[in-house]
Amino acid sequence: MVVIMEVGAGKRQIDDVIARIRSLGYDVHVSEGRERVVIGVIGNERPPDPEPLSLMAGVRDVVRVSSPFKIAGRDYHPEDTTVRVGGTEVGGGELSIIAGPCSVESRDQIVETAFAVREAGATALRGGAFKPRSSPYSFQGLGEEGLRYLAEARERTGLPVITEVMDPQAVPLVASYADVLQIGARNMQNYALLTAVGDSQRPVLLKRGMSATIEELLMSAEYILSRGNMRVMLCERGIRTFETYTRNTFDINAIPVLKRITHLPVIADPSHGVGKREFVGAVALAAAAAGADGLILEVHMDPENARSDGRQSLDPRDFAALVRRLSLVAQAVGKRVSTMAEPVRA
Amino acid sequence: MVVIMEVGAGKRQIDDVIARIRSLGYDVHVSEGRERVVIGVIGNERPPDPEPLSLMAGVRDVVRVSSPFKIAGRDYHPEDTTVRVGGTEVGGGELSIIAGPCSVESRDQIVETAFAVREAGATALRGGAFKPRSSPYSFQGLGEEGLRYLAEARERTGLPVITEVMDPQAVPLVASYADVLQIGARNMQNYALLTAVGDSQRPVLLKRGMSATIEELLMSAEYILSRGNMRVMLCERGIRTFETYTRNTFDINAIPVLKRITHLPVIADPSHGVGKREFVGAVALAAAAAGADGLILEVHMDPENARSDGRQSLDPRDFAALVRRLSLVAQAVGKRVSTMAEPVRA
Amino acid sequence: MVVIMEVGAGKRQIDDVIARIRSLGYDVHVSEGRERVVIGVIGNERPPDPEPLSLMAGVRDVVRVSSPFKIAGRDYHPEDTTVRVGGTEVGGGELSIIAGPCSVESRDQIVETAFAVREAGATALRGGAFKPRSSPYSFQGLGEEGLRYLAEARERTGLPVITEVMDPQAVPLVASYADVLQIGARNMQNYALLTAVGDSQRPVLLKRGMSATIEELLMSAEYILSRGNMRVMLCERGIRTFETYTRNTFDINAIPVLKRITHLPVIADPSHGVGKREFVGAVALAAAAAGADGLILEVHMDPENARSDGRQSLDPRDFAALVRRLSLVAQAVGKRVSTMAEPVRA
Amino acid sequence: MVVIMEVGAGKRQIDDVIARIRSLGYDVHVSEGRERVVIGVIGNERPPDPEPLSLMAGVRDVVRVSSPFKIAGRDYHPEDTTVRVGGTEVGGGELSIIAGPCSVESRDQIVETAFAVREAGATALRGGAFKPRSSPYSFQGLGEEGLRYLAEARERTGLPVITEVMDPQAVPLVASYADVLQIGARNMQNYALLTAVGDSQRPVLLKRGMSATIEELLMSAEYILSRGNMRVMLCERGIRTFETYTRNTFDINAIPVLKRITHLPVIADPSHGVGKREFVGAVALAAAAAGADGLILEVHMDPENARSDGRQSLDPRDFAALVRRLSLVAQAVGKRVSTMAEPVRA
Repeated sequence: MVVIMEVGAGKRQIDDVIARIRSLGYDVHVSEGRERVVIGVIGNERPPDPEPLSLMAGVRDVVRVSSPFKIAGRDYHPEDTTVRVGGTEVGGGELSIIAGPCSVESRDQIVETAFAVREAGATALRGGAFKPRSSPYSFQGLGEEGLRYLAEARERTGLPVITEVMDPQAVPLVASYADVLQIGARNMQNYALLTAVGDSQRPVLLKRGMSATIEELLMSAEYILSRGNMRVMLCERGIRTFETYTRNTFDINAIPVLKRITHLPVIADPSHGVGKREFVGAVALAAAAAGADGLILEVHMDPENARSDGRQSLDPRDFAALVRRLSLVAQAVGKRVSTMAEPVRA
Repeated sequence: MVVIMEVGAGKRQIDDVIARIRSLGYDVHVSEGRERVVIGVIGNERPPDPEPLSLMAGVRDVVRVSSPFKIAGRDYHPEDTTVRVGGTEVGGGELSIIAGPCSVESRDQIVETAFAVREAGATALRGGAFKPRSSPYSFQGLGEEGLRYLAEARERTGLPVITEVMDPQAVPLVASYADVLQIGARNMQNYALLTAVGDSQRPVLLKRGMSATIEELLMSAEYILSRGNMRVMLCERGIRTFETYTRNTFDINAIPVLKRITHLPVIADPSHGVGKREFVGAVALAAAAAGADGLILEVHMDPENARSDGRQSLDPRDFAALVRRLSLVAQAVGKRVSTMAEPVRA
Repeated sequence: MVVIMEVGAGKRQIDDVIARIRSLGYDVHVSEGRERVVIGVIGNERPPDPEPLSLMAGVRDVVRVSSPFKIAGRDYHPEDTTVRVGGTEVGGGELSIIAGPCSVESRDQIVETAFAVREAGATALRGGAFKPRSSPYSFQGLGEEGLRYLAEARERTGLPVITEVMDPQAVPLVASYADVLQIGARNMQNYALLTAVGDSQRPVLLKRGMSATIEELLMSAEYILSRGNMRVMLCERGIRTFETYTRNTFDINAIPVLKRITHLPVIADPSHGVGKREFVGAVALAAAAAGADGLILEVHMDPENARSDGRQSLDPRDFAALVRRLSLVAQAVGKRVSTMAEPVRA
Repeated sequence: MVVIMEVGAGKRQIDDVIARIRSLGYDVHVSEGRERVVIGVIGNERPPDPEPLSLMAGVRDVVRVSSPFKIAGRDYHPEDTTVRVGGTEVGGGELSIIAGPCSVESRDQIVETAFAVREAGATALRGGAFKPRSSPYSFQGLGEEGLRYLAEARERTGLPVITEVMDPQAVPLVASYADVLQIGARNMQNYALLTAVGDSQRPVLLKRGMSATIEELLMSAEYILSRGNMRVMLCERGIRTFETYTRNTFDINAIPVLKRITHLPVIADPSHGVGKREFVGAVALAAAAAGADGLILEVHMDPENARSDGRQSLDPRDFAALVRRLSLVAQAVGKRVSTMAEPVRA
């Protein structure tokens, strides 16, 4: 349940409403918007009787939110949320392009790749320093060393950095280097981690679990939002189905569905969504046409020799060509590819 | 295995090769192209030794086709196949739009809808006369009466007609009215039916089964192709997954995958693929951006009162707006929406 | 909707009710039980107002059946249905064992196998004469020749014969040889075929489609039942999931679910359900423990050289050992393995 | 790769082999069995050349393990592993029964339930103190208070306690109260957590993720095993499929598959596997018949009023009846239900 205060409701009225809700045994989440204050009622599964609350001074409306997610829903926040990442806004009607290698492999590799993707049109750099791997015997990433290289690549190119965090204890460390914290598909329901990134107040890119429903994705976003961190971007990255020709099945339906039911920006990850380089471009164009706010793409200087996910990485040339095609499709649906405002450093 | 004859190989050389293959216990499928003859070797699962065949007079090459589909594959036929439907070609670099109601409900309904979709840009009319319904107690379609109304709509609008056939015995009847025979998802592996439409020599729209792999779809196409009917169009219409928010999960990956491995035209059915009207447009745009050769869309004059599938049908106004947006996306990926050459009758 | 007549309601009362229902635009399905008559109301999706019917003479009750299947449900027929197959009843509290090869390959093969499985405890013989194969280039079965061999095996062993039919036109032919008509998984929603076997009045073994829900399986059974053929046995044979280690995922949950919601006998097919010989026994024991009324098992004299499905076939020795273990598990859950009443011929 | 030493190989020989492997850039995992020492070679994806190692003194064999899991596989450890839990062994040919509520709700509730399940035949008590919930607004468990109540229930009944841990930082706390640490399905690929419980040296019950393959489950087990913690029990708890009638699809196939490819004990969770109380018994019997080493069952004194998962919880009476039936099925497959050796305290 969500209590929407009048424009201009005073602090005392707001405090009274909060006190009343708490006296009924519920917790509150207060969202102070530019125009008005909205109070989320958080508690066990049955919400309180809306009528007494709706009669209180300063209350404009009490909305019973029937969906299991509250703050993530358009009932609570009808307009699109935008998230500032570096110098650009994600979610504000443009198409943001995030690119970089699956794993940070060396200083030279990440810096070189950062320049290449910036040149081609990316406005953020991705790269894994802590890698979740099915096998304990596979390369697990460079760890903090990888984070330092990412920071160096940002320093030199101006691209903000997005990287995965897998352990709640590592959140402060990763947040000290990264602009955006990524929650991977395997951790979509790792609630300790969601709570930790919620508390970090950093922008978060939350990937859909490989067998998570759209509703479960929003519930996981709700874990972050309910800690007061509103800077959440959702990422469709393919779901697990019976089809084995492709690595995953990119759920294109999820793009318009999410755009309708949530105000949070929606990013598409065609690299994982299809898993084979030769199909990544088509799926990227499709996601842009379907209304995605951004794309995250794996780009490697030498995909054949990548330490992970080479099979689905584009080389810089193919990436640049794809950005040009994305630009045309974005225009066709009334958008444009996001560009960096500040002068490029080199 | 496929035996490719030299350009100019004589009838006798061809007959000798066929005789040799038969003497080894295999059957043949002879494809007489404009330039050369190609002979498919059909038999149990182990193909014959290619060497003796490759040494015969007039033989240019013997290709071992490792994929389980042969005639459907690009190994066998590298260029795109186009299928003539009414006055237009499907698969020739344009985007064909097929539209109409789920079910033919009355003469007026189908004629009125045909004019509306033609006006908006469709080049073929869809409509079900025989409806596969999960329940024996649901509306099963108007049957032959529905076919007559479809033919009348074609007569009046010039739009070729595509309609489903479910029973091998009904193929001659349906073929006597329809331009294209549709095989529904539930019948993708109904081999008696595939054989019957193969023998009909009519163009066929083959829908992917709701849990069929891409490879199985091509194997079912192979049943039709192996009867010598080369006019097969494939249709991605969503697969069954754990996600319940949408009716099916439209497999956008299948579009570029099919375009790469088969020469047959690929049609997308966003109406079934997502199953809710408000998301059909976004998925249609995505399919066009991903490289589909055509779209098949459910359009109803009054979706709220449709006898079937109203939930996923567009009204003519939304359909017309979508065609305009499709036109822009088609341009962005180097195509254009197919239009009818002949003067419109009314 | 189902109208339940009083015990002893007269023919005239029954006819009046039928006439009233028909006058409202509905069709009827009349079930004349030993005690009373039950009338199923068949029509479009909205049932008639129950009250006027409930006031008619001879009517005991009008039950609104909320589930989409009517005759298949326990609301309509609370007690277990049994189906006579040869000299035994399937579904009457015993565990029936059906066994035989995937395909009939020769007269000797099927006769020899029939003796072997009868010796080990089977009460019916399975064997495919018409084989649905994904590829048009694979062995498609011996056709009518295979049916003749099956009939000969029955003649010599006394085992009733169950075999698949794939084409509505072939139903009379197959029914002239077989005791039970099998509908394969690929044809579970082939409505022309369901109607044809419904009209044949032969017992039917209906296999669940590989991505069909339990409810859809019952709706397909309803197609057969609504033609007045009550001798339907359902078969769980594994569903398609993301797991690739096994051929399918045997849905053990479906056994108790079906036993609760339908009165029809439930047969388990562990051979297809798991797809690898070494796991078939464990899944068979599981299905028996979960309450299946019978098992259908692939047995081949020489699995390594089977023309189809050798990977999942047991040899006669392993089959005999499994029957002994099944007997113990059946006892543990209060059943016994079904045995043939008549003296064995040889 | 695994190096198997001769029976009686000396410490020096073993140390030499280890030194050689390390000099090649690999890590080792040394398993000192009762008879002989086995050395796992852990490293990047390409193993070393086996020949030089096989020629070293004391080496009996060098086994290239082709499967991606090593220590979890039967190649590495052919005999069944048993895990001591309280006074009983899990995995030693008996059927262990673990039971208790989904959540610890109060001291009285857990103590009363513990007595009830022990009375009925359980040898371990389950109960959640930290609950993973899809919604941040649902009951999250009593936390440490719940752990204290579980410990008190153990104190009074003698039942060892198994409870979930969700956060790596909480492992020491949970391990200070619990006998077995449970990793829930959502955390099966939470590698920080797997590493933490690996280091804890406590027995671990690892649940299969809802869309994890059997191989991925074993890879996650490998994370724990590779920390030297060999006391891992695997738990099949149902996978996510398209079927919506049941909460999950219990993968019965996984039981015999796991028993064949791994030496670790396999526990079945029919409560989550089917998700509706009325079907739990049938699935439990099936799992026992299929060869499970144990069952974990949700039991609540008053399922209708449970704070979580009431829909799938048995009451003590139904649980006791089920244990009696399980005992019969266990006997039928040559096992017996595990019982507590020590005198019952009260």
